Amino acid sequence: MHILIIGAAGMVGRKLTEKLVAVGNLGGKPVDRLTLVDIVPPSAPIGYQGAVTVTTADLSTPDEAAKVISSRPDVIFHLAAIVSGEAEADFDKGYRINLDGTRYLFDAIRLEGMQAPYKPRLVFTSSIAVFGAPFPAKIDDTFFSTPLTSYGTQKAMGELLLSDYSRRGFFDGIGIRLPTICVRPGKPNKAASGFFSNILREPLSGQEAVLPVSEDVRHWHASPRAAVGFLLHAATLDTARMGPRRNLNLPGLSATVGEQIEALRRVAGAKAVALIRRERDPVIEKIVAGWPSDFIPERALALGFRAESSFDEIIRVHIEDELGGKLA
Amino acid sequence: MHILIIGAAGMVGRKLTEKLVAVGNLGGKPVDRLTLVDIVPPSAPIGYQGAVTVTTADLSTPDEAAKVISSRPDVIFHLAAIVSGEAEADFDKGYRINLDGTRYLFDAIRLEGMQAPYKPRLVFTSSIAVFGAPFPAKIDDTFFSTPLTSYGTQKAMGELLLSDYSRRGFFDGIGIRLPTICVRPGKPNKAASGFFSNILREPLSGQEAVLPVSEDVRHWHASPRAAVGFLLHAATLDTARMGPRRNLNLPGLSATVGEQIEALRRVAGAKAVALIRRERDPVIEKIVAGWPSDFIPERALALGFRAESSFDEIIRVHIEDELGGKLA
Repeated sequence: MHILIIGAAGMVGRKLTEKLVAVGNLGGKPVDRLTLVDIVPPSAPIGYQGAVTVTTADLSTPDEAAKVISSRPDVIFHLAAIVSGEAEADFDKGYRINLDGTRYLFDAIRLEGMQAPYKPRLVFTSSIAVFGAPFPAKIDDTFFSTPLTSYGTQKAMGELLLSDYSRRGFFDGIGIRLPTICVRPGKPNKAASGFFSNILREPLSGQEAVLPVSEDVRHWHASPRAAVGFLLHAATLDTARMGPRRNLNLPGLSATVGEQIEALRRVAGAKAVALIRRERDPVIEKIVAGWPSDFIPERALALGFRAESSFDEIIRVHIEDELGGKLA
Repeated sequence: MHILIIGAAGMVGRKLTEKLVAVGNLGGKPVDRLTLVDIVPPSAPIGYQGAVTVTTADLSTPDEAAKVISSRPDVIFHLAAIVSGEAEADFDKGYRINLDGTRYLFDAIRLEGMQAPYKPRLVFTSSIAVFGAPFPAKIDDTFFSTPLTSYGTQKAMGELLLSDYSRRGFFDGIGIRLPTICVRPGKPNKAASGFFSNILREPLSGQEAVLPVSEDVRHWHASPRAAVGFLLHAATLDTARMGPRRNLNLPGLSATVGEQIEALRRVAGAKAVALIRRERDPVIEKIVAGWPSDFIPERALALGFRAESSFDEIIRVHIEDELGGKLA
């Protein structure tokens, strides 16, 4: 089985690659070829026995996708995107990378299939940013997409294309709206959502973190490990069970910042919690107020997607996967 | 006031032009300039005192929209589209005209505004084809768009763009999801929805019509006169009342085919009804089963949009507007 990962150099792309290499198969079929693509050079996986192609390419350039698709991968993970903040700051770049790049990819698959029959599974990472406030307390599976960012708009447009291309039989697509990934590894960044991870990751390593919102802010989370699990499940499930509605709200954990902090206290003690410095930021508070906080993801649960059920678990996943199982 | 109508040669475009010329103003401001654009030559309106520019152009060609927009119309009606059947039959053409054409137009306005401040009102005709079965009995204002045609996909993508460009301040947009227009004037056509009009229009002129579905098929209708009323209202209402959610389900009349026929009987008598020949067509029955049949358009009603409240009224509108007020 040949697997293509577009956006392989990103955090989720790297973890997905590692997992595929560690497991060695997808849905029981050996993964004998990996093609890793990103706009910055992806790393070749360590310890992989199959064939690896590592490509640095900008798929928002018209002919790049066709070159990559001509190798006819069986499964395609399309993770590539510029993030919300950048898509908001640079209008043209956001539409070029997130919309045109997605459409070029989808069209390259369609045109490849016109040469000779070809219908890969395509997994597209969408986002809960396709939703924009006001919301019901819990968002159900039929609530409409009214994004309040260009990023959310571009993701929602990609979802529509994915459904139409799947309905037409050009590929077998599934779009998954990832919850906010927490605990995100790495350095603190300036993303408005960064603090959800910072207030856990930094204290777990003995570092101070800033909390810019009130403790009663509620949000929708899943761990990086759960995200990789979503991708693998989306790549292997029976899409006939989905009918033509190919985009899903995924399971996640709805928790307040206060609940996050209490979980941190249970797992790492009061000295970790004491490293959280409260410093309200009205700009971040306003942005966060427009984000969804809870879902009823019935379809995804029925299709077998699973996320964490407590923040203690999310923190333990971080300790196991990023800190070698040990606290600082 | 300078008004641009894109898609001016179509049925709704012609009626909108006639109405603007007859009334002479929009929201109390004199209409002193009209620009009429279509891919086929639009007719210049009769009896209009203002300046008219009639342009034959394909706005799905990259630079055409910029030329049209450089005249800086105050209000833009974007009605141009290829219909559902054609967009389904010709994949590339559908995306080129309905998606690329819309995006080129929106971008031309954005780029014009980068030369010097410019923020026209833009009215975009979307469609209930953005919805795809299964539906609740009545579709509310927050139900999601899961189109089952490429046409519906393209309209839903145009809606998302319209909201994002409006949120960004590039124009002041409003997207209106027109009900099926009934009674559609002209000859019977092969559109799957054609029979809803054929079974009224043809008997009202003493001609036979074919009914390909059961009398219990329910659908969502408004007259051509109501459609023009929607467009004019959308061009003048206070969009601040809409917030960032710029796309609306419009009011319409939910009626079964049987109710259409009973209205025909009341207005035109049994001899008209006798001209309807029943001939079931499983292909059309299957298509129609995927269409919405009823809505709760609370937002549009609160914003002042109005449609007909009985099929007798829809038929009388047709007799007044198309048959000079007289039955055959």
